[in-house]
Amino acid sequence: MVFGWLNLKVNSERLQADFDALAEIGVTMGGGVSRLALSNEDLAARSWYADRIEEAGLQIRDDEAGNLSGLLCSDDPNAKTLMLGSHLDTVPNGGRYDGAVGVLIALECLRRIRESGIKPKYHLEAINFTDEEGTWHSLFGSNAIIGNLSAADLNDSLQANGAFRAALYRAGIRPDEIQRAQRNPDDILSYLEVHIEQSNSLHEQGAELGIVDRIVGRSTYNVTFYGEAAHAGTTTAEERRDALQGAAAFIILAHKLVTEEYPEGVINCGHVSVKPDTFNVVPAEASLRVEFRHPDTTMLTEMEARLIRLTQDCAKSYRLSVGVDRVLRREAERMSPNLVHHFEQACRLEKVSYMTIASYSGHNAQIMNQMVPAGMIFLPSVDGISHNPKEFTEWRHVEVGANVLLRTILQLAV
Amino acid sequence: MVFGWLNLKVNSERLQADFDALAEIGVTMGGGVSRLALSNEDLAARSWYADRIEEAGLQIRDDEAGNLSGLLCSDDPNAKTLMLGSHLDTVPNGGRYDGAVGVLIALECLRRIRESGIKPKYHLEAINFTDEEGTWHSLFGSNAIIGNLSAADLNDSLQANGAFRAALYRAGIRPDEIQRAQRNPDDILSYLEVHIEQSNSLHEQGAELGIVDRIVGRSTYNVTFYGEAAHAGTTTAEERRDALQGAAAFIILAHKLVTEEYPEGVINCGHVSVKPDTFNVVPAEASLRVEFRHPDTTMLTEMEARLIRLTQDCAKSYRLSVGVDRVLRREAERMSPNLVHHFEQACRLEKVSYMTIASYSGHNAQIMNQMVPAGMIFLPSVDGISHNPKEFTEWRHVEVGANVLLRTILQLAV
Repeated sequence: MVFGWLNLKVNSERLQADFDALAEIGVTMGGGVSRLALSNEDLAARSWYADRIEEAGLQIRDDEAGNLSGLLCSDDPNAKTLMLGSHLDTVPNGGRYDGAVGVLIALECLRRIRESGIKPKYHLEAINFTDEEGTWHSLFGSNAIIGNLSAADLNDSLQANGAFRAALYRAGIRPDEIQRAQRNPDDILSYLEVHIEQSNSLHEQGAELGIVDRIVGRSTYNVTFYGEAAHAGTTTAEERRDALQGAAAFIILAHKLVTEEYPEGVINCGHVSVKPDTFNVVPAEASLRVEFRHPDTTMLTEMEARLIRLTQDCAKSYRLSVGVDRVLRREAERMSPNLVHHFEQACRLEKVSYMTIASYSGHNAQIMNQMVPAGMIFLPSVDGISHNPKEFTEWRHVEVGANVLLRTILQLAV
Repeated sequence: MVFGWLNLKVNSERLQADFDALAEIGVTMGGGVSRLALSNEDLAARSWYADRIEEAGLQIRDDEAGNLSGLLCSDDPNAKTLMLGSHLDTVPNGGRYDGAVGVLIALECLRRIRESGIKPKYHLEAINFTDEEGTWHSLFGSNAIIGNLSAADLNDSLQANGAFRAALYRAGIRPDEIQRAQRNPDDILSYLEVHIEQSNSLHEQGAELGIVDRIVGRSTYNVTFYGEAAHAGTTTAEERRDALQGAAAFIILAHKLVTEEYPEGVINCGHVSVKPDTFNVVPAEASLRVEFRHPDTTMLTEMEARLIRLTQDCAKSYRLSVGVDRVLRREAERMSPNLVHHFEQACRLEKVSYMTIASYSGHNAQIMNQMVPAGMIFLPSVDGISHNPKEFTEWRHVEVGANVLLRTILQLAV
């Protein structure tokens, strides 16, 4: 029956069994997950995923950047590939859904299509990208695929790359071969990703699904204030050049600036350290890792300039000097309107209530979008809790997302 | 000639040679010193000091807390002991003078008295106290001598004590024997210490020497703010419970409070860390080590209460909770008026310009003062720079201090 696939649905029980099994790999006290990229736990998850691919009768593909895929090939060997996926790595003590549901849904869609005997026009690929979370290099796997890793990223002579290179070797990835993971855009039809929202808007407004039309741009900086080490008891307040006071003022004022003047922007200081780090010595150095995001690239550039000026103002107030070093800049992306349209059509057919929203987190879809049309759907996160063991998405929403993805694949590739 | 000692002076060249040799042990780039208590460098300095004691024909005494002394004994075996000294350990990348000059001057005074053939009425002891700076336990050696270490300080079952115990064992100190280092107050005449000022007042006012009449009291706290880990991009400003913002507000407001309302007090935050310490996760925990000092014990208690209340106010402002844990409380001390008088007399005889001042740093003299009369003199620190490689005292002031101590010893003990 030609249109038999119109009623095709994923096997929700099988998907949930996969989800539960995967959540055990790297489980932490309190039910979170630590699967830092290239850690033992991440390697165990990849090995588990490879077993699932084989079990499903799909082909395994493991590229030079450690990206791991299950393939359901078209009968036409010259067909393009429709890529689907996300990532299995997590932040330290993160949640069970972030990344994992996207990979597992992609796998389930391929399994369901294969066992239904449907012959796709395009090759279908369910991919797990290496190091999405940036344990070593944020969105490493997708950047390798679009050819966006510079020689400096892996430069042998940079001492800072030493531990990363060791971790790559241990995972069987040869740093000097990573650039061979680059793909030809002509071989790829599109990239589709399912992910949890990680914000509260879908859950709050009762939508079952979000269709992403924009992904925020992001800048990350190392900011270091330099003062002078001094005895904590004998140095008067006027004499002090306390680097930590400058850093603390920056933390407060930077959040205030973004909240008041860039309501669509966000900022975080996720790391701080001082030197010499002794209770009875006034800090000579205070280092912050600062990252900020905006869905509009022009506004992101403006925020960047304002925040750099603020570091200088704070340094001046406490008679310090300051150094700023940009670690990363990723431009905001607009998702493919054609794929947004296909997702909308699938939602209507599945009778799913959806919203069109911007993503405030970076995703592999943002990177892939620089090379091929990319599309993304979000599942509601209860209370928007993310990067936290309490991260939660109702299972019915995982199932809805899986069926919308399955239908979209069938629309595009059958 | 009975009064030959009236013109006795230290051998400044010999003292300076010792100073230069000691400054090489644990030398850092930029000319600072790292001799953390019980480190290899500290053990090397103790070994070097033991060689100097033997070379000078003095007796070595090494007690159960690792305090290391050179002794010049009186002919009367039942005589009390006049103790003199300071410490050879330093903070990380500290200066060359802090502690070191006090030990070396005490040694030089004993050498000079011995080679002059003077027979002291009291035993004279030049002591290096273990861990003054608090790498493991602030003022450890002097606290052991006055019997002020509790069982909890070295408790076997406390995991936090594990590394300290290992370091003690490595230095040949058996934790279960430390309490045997306690001395009988009846055996000790007094304790005298020479130290650099570590503040700018003597240098600024052109005094050659300071006679300490008060030593500040000190409180040290661990303060931890607790919020919630969350995704740095997808969590709105209103939703965040960012522990680091609470800590930053406390840093700014605590310094403001002390500067404005406790002009004789000082405060420092010398350590800060966050968890989970990842750039793209909102900090769930931010921990500070906060210490503050005041020369008046009543005011110190008041500051303590105000600062604890401030931690609660800051926590509330950012929807956080906060835990405070007192690590140390040391009361302010008044130095022995009789010893202040003897120092003044020595200064007049030596024609040295002096000031009477309060010490804003803790010292072994503060601990010893709880058991026996203690006295302390300060040498001017250029620009007050301390706990820093740039710490500097003009050599003529080291020489003046050495000669004032020598004369005071002769007044008291001959």
